[in-house]
Amino acid sequence: MTLNINKPDIKEIFPNTVVNINGEILPPESSHVSIFDRGFLYGDSVYEVTITQNDTLIFLEEHLDRLWNSAHLISMEILFSREELIKQIKKTANAITAKTKYVRVIVTRGESEISLAPTNTSNNLIIICRELPENPSWWYEKGVEFIVSGVIRNDKESLDPNAKSGNYLNSVMAYLEAKKKGVYDSVMVNKDGHITEGTTNNIWMIKDGKITTPPISAGILKGITRDKVIEVCKENNFNFTEDVFTPNELMECDECFITSSTKGIVPVTKLNDTNVGEGTPGKVTKELSQLYQNKLDKYVKDNSNRGY
Amino acid sequence: MTLNINKPDIKEIFPNTVVNINGEILPPESSHVSIFDRGFLYGDSVYEVTITQNDTLIFLEEHLDRLWNSAHLISMEILFSREELIKQIKKTANAITAKTKYVRVIVTRGESEISLAPTNTSNNLIIICRELPENPSWWYEKGVEFIVSGVIRNDKESLDPNAKSGNYLNSVMAYLEAKKKGVYDSVMVNKDGHITEGTTNNIWMIKDGKITTPPISAGILKGITRDKVIEVCKENNFNFTEDVFTPNELMECDECFITSSTKGIVPVTKLNDTNVGEGTPGKVTKELSQLYQNKLDKYVKDNSNRGY
Repeated sequence: MTLNINKPDIKEIFPNTVVNINGEILPPESSHVSIFDRGFLYGDSVYEVTITQNDTLIFLEEHLDRLWNSAHLISMEILFSREELIKQIKKTANAITAKTKYVRVIVTRGESEISLAPTNTSNNLIIICRELPENPSWWYEKGVEFIVSGVIRNDKESLDPNAKSGNYLNSVMAYLEAKKKGVYDSVMVNKDGHITEGTTNNIWMIKDGKITTPPISAGILKGITRDKVIEVCKENNFNFTEDVFTPNELMECDECFITSSTKGIVPVTKLNDTNVGEGTPGKVTKELSQLYQNKLDKYVKDNSNRGY
Repeated sequence: MTLNINKPDIKEIFPNTVVNINGEILPPESSHVSIFDRGFLYGDSVYEVTITQNDTLIFLEEHLDRLWNSAHLISMEILFSREELIKQIKKTANAITAKTKYVRVIVTRGESEISLAPTNTSNNLIIICRELPENPSWWYEKGVEFIVSGVIRNDKESLDPNAKSGNYLNSVMAYLEAKKKGVYDSVMVNKDGHITEGTTNNIWMIKDGKITTPPISAGILKGITRDKVIEVCKENNFNFTEDVFTPNELMECDECFITSSTKGIVPVTKLNDTNVGEGTPGKVTKELSQLYQNKLDKYVKDNSNRGY
């Protein structure tokens, strides 16, 4: 008497994919965790996503810093060393061949008694590595469409968005709202009515030549691509500031874009069904994209000899 | 080269426990889900906890109503019928023998592509049934100690606490704060500074003979024991109201208690290191406890012939 639920074929959905569970490399269809894992019961986990280019793990050290910071923010102990994790990530990435690879590292608080407070200190480490198909070129050529979501971003006093955790329903709901409206993604406001971030990306606007992105204090994740684009702005003397802004101010900007580790800089050319500027990727966005690409290329060149 | 992490012995932690995964009864140590399950990746799941007494599933229909409502609140489809779920719950509960059993029903949005929007419609159903040891008698005789947490309860515009979901970090953090201070549990306030609920229970206060519990609009879970105690209040003409109150008002109450499906009514006799009233369970709390127990006994008597 098993339940009759249509299940997707994991093997089919995840070609050229491997999973590392606590050091063991497994095919996706055999990759399981205990139902007593706190990641499963409570979303009690932290994670990072990065990519490889020419077999170089992009901004690996920054992602590991942030993983440990996320764990700190939710009082989770990570019981293995950074060096051990790097070894495991490299082993996993080496297990497939692909031009670009997606790498997701998840650390949970492990299994324990069913209690909000863990009754023992443990972890489960899961690393997913898969071939990452090229992002659609139209994202970069035409730009993508956003809405301002009706879902309010998790407040930092409730669950700090700067902890990249397995509690993702807030963003799932905002993303579903975007999909229902047939657009690419949502940006959320905080309880003060200020723009925070997209569901898996940071948002930027340009008005009269001034580049603005919300500060961490608005209740956002400290994006790594965000940090790199801030560096680009500073190195190239752009007029840049971290400041809060409202949906109305965003609607009146000249250019808008998002930043993400898997997507880089993507122009946003429509917001709430209204063109941003001329409705095409703007001049400053294109300049920043090129400068960010140069930084990325330099990183790959400087780090490729480290291998993985 | 597997990771050297201390893992608890699941078999040892969970004696007299069975798990039902999509209809299949398994021992706890063999109970696993795919790491691609959205419950694991995003906390994208809903759940219920109830107990059995004398082999009667307590307030089963109310718990099922709420499970479906939680799913509705996060736009999750449940792909099996209520009748099928009841059959599976009974099958699981029948698989162990115990005076009182703990029953946890979890429904996830299943496996799909790694994307915030599920790329197919699926579920995983997990039912955990275990022997529930008797609650410590001192909870009821002496009462328990609470603090008002520094963690703000998830806002209902961000993630409605009335959806009982797998996103539980907000409550985990408040509970860890209580444990750090050596007390039983935390109660959280909402962004307006009003008391909401404990981490796994509803809170009540009595002042000058008037019984008050926060309304659903304060951003709380519509507790089933809460509903039953409201019935008790109305049936017995107690002076009862659903209304918001602040931590200061709570600190000045004469009696305080919590309600929970696994614990019933538990007196709270200390709050932020200060005695509530005389620091012992109050008269009205004791009266309500007795009346609630009568209601529970009647339920068991009326429903025991339905078997499970």
